[in-house]
Amino acid sequence: MSANISLHDGPERLKIAVVGLGRMGKRHVHTLINRVARAQVVAVCSTEAHEIEWAKSNEDYKDFGISVYDDYIVMLNHPGLQAVWISTSTDVHASQTLAAVEKGLHVLCEKPLSTDLTEAQSVVDAAKKRPDLKVMAGFSRRFDKSYRNAAAKVLDEGAIGEPFLVRSNTCDLKDETGFFVRYASRNGGIFVDCAIHDIDLALWYLGNPIPQACWATGTLKHHPELKQYNDVDNAVGVVEFRGGKIAYFYCSRTQAHGHDVCTEITGTDGKIMVNVVPRQDNIVVADKQGMRHEVQPEYWQRFEDAFALEANEFVEAVLKDKPVPLPLESGLRVMEIGRALQQALISGQVSRFDAEGKLIE
Amino acid sequence: MSANISLHDGPERLKIAVVGLGRMGKRHVHTLINRVARAQVVAVCSTEAHEIEWAKSNEDYKDFGISVYDDYIVMLNHPGLQAVWISTSTDVHASQTLAAVEKGLHVLCEKPLSTDLTEAQSVVDAAKKRPDLKVMAGFSRRFDKSYRNAAAKVLDEGAIGEPFLVRSNTCDLKDETGFFVRYASRNGGIFVDCAIHDIDLALWYLGNPIPQACWATGTLKHHPELKQYNDVDNAVGVVEFRGGKIAYFYCSRTQAHGHDVCTEITGTDGKIMVNVVPRQDNIVVADKQGMRHEVQPEYWQRFEDAFALEANEFVEAVLKDKPVPLPLESGLRVMEIGRALQQALISGQVSRFDAEGKLIE
Amino acid sequence: MSANISLHDGPERLKIAVVGLGRMGKRHVHTLINRVARAQVVAVCSTEAHEIEWAKSNEDYKDFGISVYDDYIVMLNHPGLQAVWISTSTDVHASQTLAAVEKGLHVLCEKPLSTDLTEAQSVVDAAKKRPDLKVMAGFSRRFDKSYRNAAAKVLDEGAIGEPFLVRSNTCDLKDETGFFVRYASRNGGIFVDCAIHDIDLALWYLGNPIPQACWATGTLKHHPELKQYNDVDNAVGVVEFRGGKIAYFYCSRTQAHGHDVCTEITGTDGKIMVNVVPRQDNIVVADKQGMRHEVQPEYWQRFEDAFALEANEFVEAVLKDKPVPLPLESGLRVMEIGRALQQALISGQVSRFDAEGKLIE
Amino acid sequence: MSANISLHDGPERLKIAVVGLGRMGKRHVHTLINRVARAQVVAVCSTEAHEIEWAKSNEDYKDFGISVYDDYIVMLNHPGLQAVWISTSTDVHASQTLAAVEKGLHVLCEKPLSTDLTEAQSVVDAAKKRPDLKVMAGFSRRFDKSYRNAAAKVLDEGAIGEPFLVRSNTCDLKDETGFFVRYASRNGGIFVDCAIHDIDLALWYLGNPIPQACWATGTLKHHPELKQYNDVDNAVGVVEFRGGKIAYFYCSRTQAHGHDVCTEITGTDGKIMVNVVPRQDNIVVADKQGMRHEVQPEYWQRFEDAFALEANEFVEAVLKDKPVPLPLESGLRVMEIGRALQQALISGQVSRFDAEGKLIE
Repeated sequence: MSANISLHDGPERLKIAVVGLGRMGKRHVHTLINRVARAQVVAVCSTEAHEIEWAKSNEDYKDFGISVYDDYIVMLNHPGLQAVWISTSTDVHASQTLAAVEKGLHVLCEKPLSTDLTEAQSVVDAAKKRPDLKVMAGFSRRFDKSYRNAAAKVLDEGAIGEPFLVRSNTCDLKDETGFFVRYASRNGGIFVDCAIHDIDLALWYLGNPIPQACWATGTLKHHPELKQYNDVDNAVGVVEFRGGKIAYFYCSRTQAHGHDVCTEITGTDGKIMVNVVPRQDNIVVADKQGMRHEVQPEYWQRFEDAFALEANEFVEAVLKDKPVPLPLESGLRVMEIGRALQQALISGQVSRFDAEGKLIE
Repeated sequence: MSANISLHDGPERLKIAVVGLGRMGKRHVHTLINRVARAQVVAVCSTEAHEIEWAKSNEDYKDFGISVYDDYIVMLNHPGLQAVWISTSTDVHASQTLAAVEKGLHVLCEKPLSTDLTEAQSVVDAAKKRPDLKVMAGFSRRFDKSYRNAAAKVLDEGAIGEPFLVRSNTCDLKDETGFFVRYASRNGGIFVDCAIHDIDLALWYLGNPIPQACWATGTLKHHPELKQYNDVDNAVGVVEFRGGKIAYFYCSRTQAHGHDVCTEITGTDGKIMVNVVPRQDNIVVADKQGMRHEVQPEYWQRFEDAFALEANEFVEAVLKDKPVPLPLESGLRVMEIGRALQQALISGQVSRFDAEGKLIE
Repeated sequence: MSANISLHDGPERLKIAVVGLGRMGKRHVHTLINRVARAQVVAVCSTEAHEIEWAKSNEDYKDFGISVYDDYIVMLNHPGLQAVWISTSTDVHASQTLAAVEKGLHVLCEKPLSTDLTEAQSVVDAAKKRPDLKVMAGFSRRFDKSYRNAAAKVLDEGAIGEPFLVRSNTCDLKDETGFFVRYASRNGGIFVDCAIHDIDLALWYLGNPIPQACWATGTLKHHPELKQYNDVDNAVGVVEFRGGKIAYFYCSRTQAHGHDVCTEITGTDGKIMVNVVPRQDNIVVADKQGMRHEVQPEYWQRFEDAFALEANEFVEAVLKDKPVPLPLESGLRVMEIGRALQQALISGQVSRFDAEGKLIE
Repeated sequence: MSANISLHDGPERLKIAVVGLGRMGKRHVHTLINRVARAQVVAVCSTEAHEIEWAKSNEDYKDFGISVYDDYIVMLNHPGLQAVWISTSTDVHASQTLAAVEKGLHVLCEKPLSTDLTEAQSVVDAAKKRPDLKVMAGFSRRFDKSYRNAAAKVLDEGAIGEPFLVRSNTCDLKDETGFFVRYASRNGGIFVDCAIHDIDLALWYLGNPIPQACWATGTLKHHPELKQYNDVDNAVGVVEFRGGKIAYFYCSRTQAHGHDVCTEITGTDGKIMVNVVPRQDNIVVADKQGMRHEVQPEYWQRFEDAFALEANEFVEAVLKDKPVPLPLESGLRVMEIGRALQQALISGQVSRFDAEGKLIE
């Protein structure tokens, strides 16, 4: 009468660990638990006492059987571990990725691999020697529904003719907590830390053009303490590519209204606007002040779904042995351009690239 | 060195079955698998041969160990089964809920419990006798981020003063597949099938007022075959409540641009607009035709997140023995008003309610 | 060398007077002076001492040679006078129009001609006997750029297939000055005073259908003093027309955010939305409260251009002996429906119309 | 009984002539006739045979008594002439302004005074010697309702704290008629012709900061014939000002969707967006393609009201001997920056300014 009663409990799940339990790391654990059916978080790791404390007493972590480590190398030996999601500060991304690859583990590493190009290249090289491992850098916007729809329209449907211009912003809500400034010395500067996503989008939509020259300028409005790092809290940069293509960027740490990330792609026959009017949800309040809506306070509210899709596609790439959705080396050019903009910002001079797109220093 | 290695595989998961494998049922299985970490779909059931066929050969269903039944009563005996999500056609909602309750199972039943109020009342009565069981009717909009934010603003923050007027629409994309018409004879009419969500929202935002009178009119534009069921494909209805409150609704089966569901709540000091400009994502295309964006084609794209939250809150209510987020009996008044509007639509007369809000027939 | 030096000072200008110097009348004078090149305001008239005072000391009025009268009948004898713009309270519209027609003057009369249908009919009859005179009722929205574009799309281009449903709102900013309440006893009630524009739009876009039945309900939220006039400050009404067409309206005196007038026309293949998100200008402010824009406070900011176009088209109709853009009699059906809705509001009963669209009382 | 019958025909009107009857000149005549009550167009002038022909046979011009000249110097002797509106091509702006000032006439001259700074300076100098004459350069956006509201918020209300960043675009609809290319050799290049308005806005909102350095890049997508003039059809430029202020611009001749002119002003406490989503009117069409609205095809539809206000304020400045709303010399810095951007575009090098803001060449 009834049909095939199942005798098992669920599919093989990818045993994964998350290293780094800052704001971001905690969210990745949350995503893996709640939105990635074929993954199982078996371990987390942090070197911060308060984060370890927090993790050990977390009810969810207990329920889901997540082991808590204070030593990354020890964690890599966790029984049955197959993959690592690296969510630490940028300065240890490369060494942690290399260590995991060494152990034969798959890696999803937050962008950027390193602020040092040679080091980043060494990770790419190491990954190339282990084609059996999936190693991927996390460019979350590539997994966002709107950005993907834009890519489909621009690249597949030709909806705007030949795309030749990208404007893209990464503007963060002013951070009154001091969180951002604490990491400022290690993030490589505003164009490496913020614009990296925008540069990646520009390369994507413009068909990976070779950069030719760029210039940038910036200003310090709320965080004078950045001056010691040669950095600014608001910056504008323009990149000229070979073949008559252009991208320009605005990065800010000091927005009053929320996390405002938008991109416009202009082509010979039209334009695609992504998130030019950001919205927290689809509510409008009409009262004495007119009509208003709220904006997401952080990248998380804007990109939560994108992180979930990224995690699922990474897990699927591992379990089904498919290529990762974004080749690891594509992050190198992004960083080259980020550094060239940062250099222009500091020097006031035009940064120029050679015929292969290498920065002429 | 490392800390507390976990010895178990995950938390207790609620063993749940989904009955009905139409468009909706399949989506609920998908939600339970992918977005409800503490649920385990152990069984599905359908009486349609092609759905059973489809389910038996589905790779996901095999991987996740989901048993496929062709008999609901047999399925209720599935080993360890704790809860049922009923996603069949409205005419069997009540009997299936009663059977599950009888077996001591928790139930999440798609709205409405029944198009017949006496039958619906019998379900409410049965559930009351088993306070140990969680029995809930699925009003998915109650779990939508925008509607919840609106409720917080209207009911908790008093952002618009005293709310006294609700306008709410349920407008479906024109269905060229014949899907909708196949179920038309069993759905209770446009105000019971479509407006039920809008009526529920109106009662929520207006503080559960008692209806006094209502009127409705409608027209047939694309589905002349509805005439045999005394139904229409576009209808407008107005409800007058005691205490000077008003709600009015527009339901349509024939929109050209997508699934357009919007709500406005007007108060003495302002207005909240929910989804008055629906958007599929946050892309705008600018080309020879001007500037345009796409609209969700179906309720699914609009409410996918709401369904996931609903499922999670139901599962949590069961596992932690909390009250269900929406009392079962609240659906009864919604249906009473839906039927009163449908009656007005057919008769052309004003439907009136007694002092307790019962329809005077 | 130079060509045809002109010897005259300008074209023949239509000598026109404005009667009524309330908020509206003053604005009409302003429009005629500043935006109607072929009109010359030669006189104004008021019976209010303070308005007469104001006009006599107005520098513009002096500069432009405008005579100020305190007696309408005397003013009609102003030397050379050709036309009158009647902008008084509704109760004297009909008698003043009749007096002007009697004198052989062209008339542009603010809507409605009268709250009494028999009286309104008498004006239409009088005008018919003088086909040499242009007599027009002012339905300003017919001259609005957006409403005209909507008409072109709906009626000329067939952009939405067969239009069958109109939703239209006239929602005023809450009036804290008492201005509105002072005129409340004479305006015929909310459906006659506010909805008259919406009804006119509905008839326009739906192709002048014949009404069949209507119902309405309302509530008193800010102006309890309206109760003595059997009126409300917020009302919703639905009209059913022959041929499966429907219109529904929301009128309000109590909006917090501005003058919010919107219209949606739904057809078998699409929908046109007019001013569903009202905007004072094209500015958005992004700050701690999110993103917001302002809304016009009054009909004047929304319809100033429409009034200018209306005046120009009226003047052109006179000077070039063309038909007026809107036949006088078209206002009669609008008023019939307005009164039927008001009657339903008061009685709680459905108002019904005979086969010719006459209200069955 | 009646009061003060007026004996005169209207106020003193400013006798004004328009020189240049291209697209723009014709529109200025139209504005003066229809929207400037205190002006009287007494003459027009063109050197183009077909424009002279057109003007001579124009009914409106005949009615309003407008003399048609083919010689500018002769026209300056038109009896009673008081003022001239110069709407010719840029290369004769300066000489025509000087000739009019020489004759003792007031001048409203289209921007820019000249593409040559020395020549422009000579006009400013000449005007300074005749403080009795009103000489003004036409920066129409300064008279736009939205830009003025933005100025009130930014400069008067301090709504966004200290403004430090301006983004501004001038993007024209692709011109298939060849009109634009015909004038390309004489317009000074894209940054002088297009960005001049944006630069002016940036200076306005940022409090007239002194430029320090700028860079630009561009591309040719639709008008290869511009190459011979060292010009491009799409360009991006960034200007760094002293005091940590920044402006950046995008100019385009090749938009598919309309005339898209937008500006964002960012301050330490917020942001003002002007026209970021341009709209032809307030209509949205919802159909199979989603929801869309139209965009103005040209600057005229966007700025028609601004031109009317500009004309009225100029006329009032003359008649009432008030300062012109915008000092003539303010155009000089705008042009200096425009030329610096154009130079950077051509050279690929950073253009730098001295401590007074003079371009170092």
